[in-house]
Amino acid sequence: MILAEIVTVGDELLDGRVLDTNARKIALFLADRGIQVARHLSIGDREGEIARAILEAAGRCDLVITTGGLGPTEDDRTRHAVAAATGADLAFHEDVFARIEALFRARGMPVPASNRLQALFPAGAEVLENGAGSAPGFAVRLGRARVLSAPGVPSELDWMLRESIDRWIRERGLDGEAPRIERFRLSGLSESAMQDLLDGAGQRPAGLVVRDRVDAGEIDLELVLPPPRDASRWAMLDGLVKALEGEFGESIVSRDGTTLVEALVRKLVALGRTLSVAESCTGGLIGHLITEVPGASAVFVEGTVAYSNPAKVRSLGVPEELLAAHGAVSEEVVKAMARGALERTGSDFALATSGILGPGGATPGKPVGLVWTALAGREPGFGPVRAWRREFPGPRSAKKVFAAKHALDRLRRALLAARG
Amino acid sequence: MILAEIVTVGDELLDGRVLDTNARKIALFLADRGIQVARHLSIGDREGEIARAILEAAGRCDLVITTGGLGPTEDDRTRHAVAAATGADLAFHEDVFARIEALFRARGMPVPASNRLQALFPAGAEVLENGAGSAPGFAVRLGRARVLSAPGVPSELDWMLRESIDRWIRERGLDGEAPRIERFRLSGLSESAMQDLLDGAGQRPAGLVVRDRVDAGEIDLELVLPPPRDASRWAMLDGLVKALEGEFGESIVSRDGTTLVEALVRKLVALGRTLSVAESCTGGLIGHLITEVPGASAVFVEGTVAYSNPAKVRSLGVPEELLAAHGAVSEEVVKAMARGALERTGSDFALATSGILGPGGATPGKPVGLVWTALAGREPGFGPVRAWRREFPGPRSAKKVFAAKHALDRLRRALLAARG
Repeated sequence: MILAEIVTVGDELLDGRVLDTNARKIALFLADRGIQVARHLSIGDREGEIARAILEAAGRCDLVITTGGLGPTEDDRTRHAVAAATGADLAFHEDVFARIEALFRARGMPVPASNRLQALFPAGAEVLENGAGSAPGFAVRLGRARVLSAPGVPSELDWMLRESIDRWIRERGLDGEAPRIERFRLSGLSESAMQDLLDGAGQRPAGLVVRDRVDAGEIDLELVLPPPRDASRWAMLDGLVKALEGEFGESIVSRDGTTLVEALVRKLVALGRTLSVAESCTGGLIGHLITEVPGASAVFVEGTVAYSNPAKVRSLGVPEELLAAHGAVSEEVVKAMARGALERTGSDFALATSGILGPGGATPGKPVGLVWTALAGREPGFGPVRAWRREFPGPRSAKKVFAAKHALDRLRRALLAARG
Repeated sequence: MILAEIVTVGDELLDGRVLDTNARKIALFLADRGIQVARHLSIGDREGEIARAILEAAGRCDLVITTGGLGPTEDDRTRHAVAAATGADLAFHEDVFARIEALFRARGMPVPASNRLQALFPAGAEVLENGAGSAPGFAVRLGRARVLSAPGVPSELDWMLRESIDRWIRERGLDGEAPRIERFRLSGLSESAMQDLLDGAGQRPAGLVVRDRVDAGEIDLELVLPPPRDASRWAMLDGLVKALEGEFGESIVSRDGTTLVEALVRKLVALGRTLSVAESCTGGLIGHLITEVPGASAVFVEGTVAYSNPAKVRSLGVPEELLAAHGAVSEEVVKAMARGALERTGSDFALATSGILGPGGATPGKPVGLVWTALAGREPGFGPVRAWRREFPGPRSAKKVFAAKHALDRLRRALLAARG
């Protein structure tokens, strides 16, 4: 089995400014490819220390992955450190610099002199494409180990793991027999409710690893069964998966990691139906989440962020009397918002939210965290506007995410029965 | 200055099951006490490897803090590893076990035999109280270093950092003088342009550490001058800071870490001015960012997510002829969107975005990444609607963030001259 170590570089990881999420991302990436991580080290921006850490790691394992320290500033020292560790000089790559120049030209900006640094690589290194930023990664040999360096910017690392690093690892045959992974993306279920259902779902095969992760109101559950393949362990996992499919039921968004909003947009596309949203407390987040999905323009007609009461009246047709009688955070008003969005935009469905996210704004009977959600549908069989009352916990921004996800989940569930 | 290393123990940190948040928590705790963290290592549950890691760390620094591996199960090996590293036996502490027994009795539960393990400590260790769980921590000497071990359960670690570890560090005089930190939050400036300005800004005092971090289109720059306080170094930093204030100029969002959107909302509140937004490609993200700031309701009137052309006509009054003549992604249309939002909502300012975020949608002369931004203002002195053309790099979601931040930054800059 291939043994790996992860080295994340940056003073900001050691003085507490930044939470290191890259190491875990890489660990999951490697685990899925049957590669075991033995150590993860975070180290500061000093070249000598980075070089020493890489040398030590390469002496213990087959693959060292570093992130960070590839930017254009003088405290970006990873390329120098790898060169020092391997005893190589840094070589300037004209073709890489040409690409960096083109990137800046496209933004109408001159290339700062410091960006020349990002075209320097240890002599003999293989350059690894970075489709999400200006600093490519690279790979070198160091004794019996290989050292692979990628930028620390999460979006750039994501791109490289998915594309160039994945390809590089497969081409060199470094990936081993992958574990069997059964994945459940769950929505509208608490972590403890999920745990209770899991505990009651039956026997687990020996060696099964359960990974669960809460991701902005959704749960990513993975049952990981490492090799070797063995009939009785495999059959036992089949049984467990079947039981869980029954227990989780409509809370299952996908079995392949497809997220709530991706599943919802795809379903609307398949059904040929459109959506509009009327957001008060979620402030645009629902629209933002929907438009994160490529192709959302086929289903998303319009969003109204009616943060003020006049906006609710003007742009959603909420009667002033209703606001005066019940307040903006009420079943009556949130239903009127959904109805107004449906009528004004001509969409097939409309979601509406109105709530109190705090820190201020609570009134008797309406605590901070209270959110009303409504769903209106145009089709005759869909019935009257539905509404839900929820109280969400946590800090303001978490409440907002919960509220947005809850609204999206209500529409997802409502569409489950529909064919498409 | 006291130098520390952090060792977090647990297989679940290396296979990606759990995101390590303890290391950052400890790093911040130490930074606040003038203690510098040189390395953070995550390692699995094997005793020999933990012992080796602790020995290596103790050879490099003054203080090693470990978390994890103090539970009652057989794969909790940290106490054995510390004993092995120091060459001590494990000694049973009757008084600690009595406290564990009392804890279980209070919950009406028998003490599992395995919990006897939690009363074992390397001979000569000082026991550190854990008021939030059953496993106390402990501290030992190892050569010139001290090794301090705490449980990995976050709530228990929190308690110990706040109480017993804080007391232990102060009683031993390990806490030092905190560094002087000068912070710049910058917006509308690339990291490399920032670096070029920094390089040209003048002399740096000896020992100055420059930390910079890109955070969703903004830059957090910190100049950190460690003690001892020294008149000439301090004066040199004063000079550098003054020069940078001039060089960065309007790109400075704040000197205290206040973010772009926080600064913008506060400025609008101070001026008593309101804002509406008309978003196409940003899909609600600008509204979402504004409403992340508590108190945004005082300035944010309404957002229109006009994702479709009919929505631009219906809700923003964009003339259909304009859309037909120039397309949705054009200077003419984005200006009409801003003007429409201003007129329909009655706000003092309106921001509008229209762009192509991809992956599809490019046309000749309009590449993926092209975004038009417009800003309209009501006041007579504000002049006509202004517009900017940009091409943003990276994946779809990064482009969206850049576009939203760019729009917010244009309004921030426009308001700089205004008093409030």
